[in-house]
Amino acid sequence: MAGLILTTYDWVPEAPRGYVRDIRLRWALEEAELPYRVASTPFHRRDAAHFAHQPFGQVPWLTDGDLSIFESGAILLHLGERSTALMPADPRGRSDVREWVFAALNSVEMASLPWVLFHFAGDAFDTPGGRQLQAFLDVRLEHMEQVLSARTWLAGTFSVADILMADVLRLVDRFDGLAARPACRGYVARATARPAFVKAYEDQIAHFAAAD
Amino acid sequence: MAGLILTTYDWVPEAPRGYVRDIRLRWALEEAELPYRVASTPFHRRDAAHFAHQPFGQVPWLTDGDLSIFESGAILLHLGERSTALMPADPRGRSDVREWVFAALNSVEMASLPWVLFHFAGDAFDTPGGRQLQAFLDVRLEHMEQVLSARTWLAGTFSVADILMADVLRLVDRFDGLAARPACRGYVARATARPAFVKAYEDQIAHFAAAD
Repeated sequence: MAGLILTTYDWVPEAPRGYVRDIRLRWALEEAELPYRVASTPFHRRDAAHFAHQPFGQVPWLTDGDLSIFESGAILLHLGERSTALMPADPRGRSDVREWVFAALNSVEMASLPWVLFHFAGDAFDTPGGRQLQAFLDVRLEHMEQVLSARTWLAGTFSVADILMADVLRLVDRFDGLAARPACRGYVARATARPAFVKAYEDQIAHFAAAD
Repeated sequence: MAGLILTTYDWVPEAPRGYVRDIRLRWALEEAELPYRVASTPFHRRDAAHFAHQPFGQVPWLTDGDLSIFESGAILLHLGERSTALMPADPRGRSDVREWVFAALNSVEMASLPWVLFHFAGDAFDTPGGRQLQAFLDVRLEHMEQVLSARTWLAGTFSVADILMADVLRLVDRFDGLAARPACRGYVARATARPAFVKAYEDQIAHFAAAD
């Protein structure tokens, strides 16, 4: 079997450490106990080779033999097909995981990431646009609160969908956006207590610290 | 083979007509010439049955026999597996389509949708947060302009990735966000000139007009 290589930046500033998206891949690879190694690409100098793997100049990307894949959602579905620790083998189970993978990214993160950018910019939410962004996130979290009040994991058993959703909600929690959402907070706590997340987190912190 | 049923709202206000996400499914179904029928769910009264199919109270969802799927990305990958008009059959081709499906939703729409919400709210982009949102979209479009300057379709041949990316960029174009991006505008024009898009668009307009 060809080796799996996860590529991330060689270094990032302090603020995003622990939240760079390579953690989603590290976490999945640890859950599945798939052997992999980590490679680095320069944060300060994004060259043509970088854009050939990741057309937006972002990280991570994964190479699996001669296949190179970008987008954490696509990579996690790829890894899910290699391990039932990440995605069940039956068609209905796979379909459920897939819809929640997209829901994490396209229904929740699409509302949470602009909200986070607003926080980083230090902007107030008291303009029409700001209120719109806040309302967009609020309604999505309200629905997630209902969903997570009734289940432990999104698609029956733990899967790549939970890796993505927990990582998305974890960043909202960092800015205190889950204060009124106990089921969401409990879900994040449950997911991030998993040994595979703890190892992934520590490995990411150590990777960037080594470059200081 | 079980019938495919696409569910959308029974009615929507004037502004989103032609842009409701059921168009992504209609477009794919027309491209693949898969038989389907359209069902309606009330826009003004979203009940438990609605949330059982779509936990965020949105549309569309697709039923395929006893399988019910929400999230346009997940539905398009499901349909892609049923027709090579939507996704090639070889593993590398499928992987390429999948990464661009996620890129359309998680790298481009994640930047464009908050920008559109800001426009709808009538907010100016002259606050730190507003400038951050504008810059977020600008950099993603700049990279898409490079990509689309060098290729006709995202993954070699036309696929579900193009349905999603073209639909995402079409909404940016509606608010004149592609003025400085000729390759992106050319791509949207090329995609929306396809007979399957034209039919999908007309069918959506007619569906909502019938409820007025």
